[in-house]
Amino acid sequence: MQAKITLIGAGNVGHHLALILHQSGHSIQQIFSRKYHKAYALAKKVGAKATNKLENVRDGADFYIIAVKDDAIQSVAEQLQLTQGVLAHTSGSASILQLKTHLQFGSFYPLQTFRKKQMPDWTTLPFCIDGNTDAVKKHLFRLAKTVNKNVYYIDDAQRQTLHLSAVVVNNFTNHLLGISQEIVEDKNIPFDLLVPLLQETIRKAIIHHPFEIQTGPAVRNDTKTIQKHLSLLDNDVYKELYALFTKSISLV
Amino acid sequence: MQAKITLIGAGNVGHHLALILHQSGHSIQQIFSRKYHKAYALAKKVGAKATNKLENVRDGADFYIIAVKDDAIQSVAEQLQLTQGVLAHTSGSASILQLKTHLQFGSFYPLQTFRKKQMPDWTTLPFCIDGNTDAVKKHLFRLAKTVNKNVYYIDDAQRQTLHLSAVVVNNFTNHLLGISQEIVEDKNIPFDLLVPLLQETIRKAIIHHPFEIQTGPAVRNDTKTIQKHLSLLDNDVYKELYALFTKSISLV
Repeated sequence: MQAKITLIGAGNVGHHLALILHQSGHSIQQIFSRKYHKAYALAKKVGAKATNKLENVRDGADFYIIAVKDDAIQSVAEQLQLTQGVLAHTSGSASILQLKTHLQFGSFYPLQTFRKKQMPDWTTLPFCIDGNTDAVKKHLFRLAKTVNKNVYYIDDAQRQTLHLSAVVVNNFTNHLLGISQEIVEDKNIPFDLLVPLLQETIRKAIIHHPFEIQTGPAVRNDTKTIQKHLSLLDNDVYKELYALFTKSISLV
Repeated sequence: MQAKITLIGAGNVGHHLALILHQSGHSIQQIFSRKYHKAYALAKKVGAKATNKLENVRDGADFYIIAVKDDAIQSVAEQLQLTQGVLAHTSGSASILQLKTHLQFGSFYPLQTFRKKQMPDWTTLPFCIDGNTDAVKKHLFRLAKTVNKNVYYIDDAQRQTLHLSAVVVNNFTNHLLGISQEIVEDKNIPFDLLVPLLQETIRKAIIHHPFEIQTGPAVRNDTKTIQKHLSLLDNDVYKELYALFTKSISLV
C-alpha cells in the first residue's frame, strides 16, 4: 500500500507522523501549518508542498491527517474543502464526530508521548483506529499497519478512557517521580540511588497486576512509618498526596 | 575479604542477602528465624547452622545482619549476646540507634523491592551504609563492595528521606499503575496498549528532571479535558487523586 497523505499540523505529532509515513513509503502531498516556516521546514524533509492557508489544502489525497490542538480540530475540519479521501484526527480525547462535516472520517491516534527532537520508537507504538464506516476503519487500519503491527480498533468512548489512563500513566507518574526526585535532592542524595528500584517497580507492574503485588506502609497499615513520612514532607500538597495514596491503597 | 556472617531473619530480605553473601564468598555461620523450618531451609542452601532461639546465636562472627520487621529490630538487638562483630539492620526507616546496646552497630540497607521467588539484580542494587563509628562504616562499606560497586554512605536522616522517596517511587507508582490498569480493563481495553507509553515515561524521567518535561491537561490548564476525565471516573478516591494531581502539577 502506497498512499497520498496530507498532514494538517506540524507540531510534535504532525512532525513525527510526516517523517514515519514518508519513511514507510507513502507520498506526502502537503504540510499545513499556520506558521509557514514550520510547514516549509517539515515539507522539505518529506518532499511535500507547504501551505499556511487551509483553503489551499488540495483535494485528491487518500488521507488527511489532522494533528492540531484539540480545541482547533472542529474548526479546521470545517474549513477543509474535500470531496474525497479519509479525514482523521490524532487526538486521544476529541470525538471523531468533530469531523462529521466530511463523508469519511475517523481517528488515527498514536498512543505515545512525543518530543520534537526525538524520534519515537515506531516499532512498539500502538495505533488506535476508529472510523465512521467499516470501510474507513479498514483504510486507516491498513495505513497504520504500514508503520507497525500494533494497530487496534478503539472507538470514541474507549479512546477517551485510554486517554484518561494515559494521563495517569504518563503525566501523573512523571509528576510522582518529580516529587521523589525533589525529596531526595533536598537532602543531597542523588536520584540515581532510586533508579534500580524504579525500573524493578515498572518491570513487575507490567508482568503482574499492580494491585496484586502492592507493598509498603499503606498496605500493611504501618501507621508509625506513615506518620514519620508525613512529618518529613514540608510541602502541604505532597502531604495531601501521601495521605490520599495511603487511603486509596488501603481501600483496594 | 572473606567474612563470617550471621543472618537474623529469613524473610525476603534475609533470604536474598544470605544467598548473595554466600555467593560472594563469605562464610554464613548461622541463620536465625522464629520459624525453625524457615531458618533450616535457608541455612541448608548456604552451608550454615539454623536456630530459632536468639540466645543460641553464637558470638564470634564478623557481621550480624538483622533482617526482621522494623518493630522487632530493637527487641531482637537487645536479646543478642555478642562481644564482638558489627551488628547492622537492613531497614529503610529504623534508626541505627535501635542497636545501641551493642558496641559496633550500623545500617546495611539494600535499596530494592524483594520478592522471595525472584533473585534481585545485585549488579545494580544500591547499598546504603551507616555506622556508629568510622571503623564500623568502613567495615560495612567493604562488605557491601564485595557484592557490587553501588555503595553509598547514607546517614539515618538521609536514609529516612530515601525510604520516603522509595515509597513514592515504588508503592505509589505501583498503585497509580494499578488504577490505570483498572480503568482500561473496565472498558475491555488491554493494558498492553499503555506499556510503550509507560516505558517511554520512565526512560525520559530518568534522563531529564521530571518537572522539566511535564505534559498533559494539568500543566496546560486544559479544564475541558480535566472535567471530562473526572466525569469518566466512578471511584470517588480516584477522582480525588486526579484532582489533587492536577492541583499539584499546576503548582510546580
